[in-house]
Amino acid sequence: MKVISLLKDVKNELKFVEKELQKAVEAPDPLLSETSAHLLNAGGKRLRPAFAILAGKAYNFEREKLLPIAVALELIHMASLVHDDVIDASPTRRGIPTVKARWGNQISMHTGDYLFAKALILISQYSNPMISSVLSDVSVKMCEGEIQQIISSFDVRQGVKDYFYRIKRKTALLISASCQCGALAVDAPMEVVKALGLYGHHLGMAFQIGDDILDLVADQKKLGKPVGGDLRQGIITLPIIYALARSPQRQRLQELVGKREKSEGEVLEAIKIIKESGAVEYSLNMSNRYIVKAKKQLVHLPPARAKDSLVVVADYINNRKY
Amino acid sequence: MKVISLLKDVKNELKFVEKELQKAVEAPDPLLSETSAHLLNAGGKRLRPAFAILAGKAYNFEREKLLPIAVALELIHMASLVHDDVIDASPTRRGIPTVKARWGNQISMHTGDYLFAKALILISQYSNPMISSVLSDVSVKMCEGEIQQIISSFDVRQGVKDYFYRIKRKTALLISASCQCGALAVDAPMEVVKALGLYGHHLGMAFQIGDDILDLVADQKKLGKPVGGDLRQGIITLPIIYALARSPQRQRLQELVGKREKSEGEVLEAIKIIKESGAVEYSLNMSNRYIVKAKKQLVHLPPARAKDSLVVVADYINNRKY
Repeated sequence: MKVISLLKDVKNELKFVEKELQKAVEAPDPLLSETSAHLLNAGGKRLRPAFAILAGKAYNFEREKLLPIAVALELIHMASLVHDDVIDASPTRRGIPTVKARWGNQISMHTGDYLFAKALILISQYSNPMISSVLSDVSVKMCEGEIQQIISSFDVRQGVKDYFYRIKRKTALLISASCQCGALAVDAPMEVVKALGLYGHHLGMAFQIGDDILDLVADQKKLGKPVGGDLRQGIITLPIIYALARSPQRQRLQELVGKREKSEGEVLEAIKIIKESGAVEYSLNMSNRYIVKAKKQLVHLPPARAKDSLVVVADYINNRKY
Repeated sequence: MKVISLLKDVKNELKFVEKELQKAVEAPDPLLSETSAHLLNAGGKRLRPAFAILAGKAYNFEREKLLPIAVALELIHMASLVHDDVIDASPTRRGIPTVKARWGNQISMHTGDYLFAKALILISQYSNPMISSVLSDVSVKMCEGEIQQIISSFDVRQGVKDYFYRIKRKTALLISASCQCGALAVDAPMEVVKALGLYGHHLGMAFQIGDDILDLVADQKKLGKPVGGDLRQGIITLPIIYALARSPQRQRLQELVGKREKSEGEVLEAIKIIKESGAVEYSLNMSNRYIVKAKKQLVHLPPARAKDSLVVVADYINNRKY
């Protein structure tokens, strides 16, 4: 998804976002400044700010109206990452130790809360109540997704419906909100806001399916973490669900997937079974359908270069390798 | 502080708050509903809703305008309690097992996030941007207070200034915000909002000093938890700071307070030294000064029965025994 930050329409604006992000994570306490800045300095694609900017530009570009919401969206995303780290105790994220690994659970939780609250300050600047309404709805649903992920972990009986419920909340809704809020910030009419919201939703679904495929098939170096992470954490993704239902070796796969502690060999065996079942092709096809649906929404937008960029982004998601 | 919920001006309204709170914690997932409702059903004084209602009534009573913010304030408070439980791993709160003790850290953290996000939905209903602005500022500062508490725990070198920095963020600001938001919700003029904000701030400071005194001197049964909890957790409160500086046995006290694992006998010994130093009287006097300052702010309010209630509440805080 790096492509989005390289787009002409976005690249320059993200420099402003970066500066404001640095300012936003400043805290009176040096430790809190350090933990807050820790994840920020590890970089990232700034996907949600990029979507907000592109969505805003698709209607009418006004930097000073777009910047606070773009920054707020990245802060919300970062807050959820820091809180995720508290949970799954993963030792690294984006190639560096997590806040949790370095400072422990207590500090991580408060750092997440802090980043989220900083986002709220930026959001409260907007007079359009739709912006905070959209974002508070998403925040509620993101928690629902997290809880469902915990409850359903290692549960091999879950189906495609559970998966879609989860990735909608984990990923698609915040990308959809990014698009909506970008449009709302520049006072786009509801028709445009709605179309961009659906575009973001469908693209977010495709993006997460893509992520979940890559977690099984990607090059470890490019992925920045070992493959099979979801299997290890018991997160049962679309390709796994497909293979659990369709693979001739589904019984063995069930056994492997349901195991709370897996050896390296068992993870690789599960991946092999999943790949051989056709699950990757099935999932790619599902992702592709979302891409098509996302692009269809763009007909509701006025012609603009940013609109073309939204098409480029959609096509890219369909073809990314890492 | 139970008195506030017994006041005529508040009692009836809190029944509405209670009903709305029950609705607010409903979740699509049964586990999330259960964890969210868990703390709610344990009861509580509903201090923050009560302050919002009294503050609103001091200007102009409109239930439908006050109810959402009153509920939101309690949700924010509950969210912070659930997150606190993740941290200090205390086995009970309000006499029942904590969310953390029953469901673990992951679920607790998301339950806290969920309650907070539910509050945001209620807040986003208000068209006055001051309300979300006040609450997002408070949320940022509450995190700063939590982090400072972690960093400074067991640190016997801290002074009164560190203590006031902390209790302002931990307690006073949210009570101040409750008063401000109650007034803002009923469209009170800025002069009234400001006076009520200062009233709430001073009262909140007095309230926390009172809590910190009671943690050392209260009857364990009435307190609902063992005395000396702060000493055990390394939270160095005003009476402790005073005794660390003034007690003739300050060297022994330093040793005891700085110890990360204390025996029951050591906790009781520390409490004895603190009491003998005159720290309780000093702290009561400090609390009293805040009460006086709080009451002074009420001259800026128009005459109303709720104004008299605010005086009653202030006097009560000065005399409470548990």
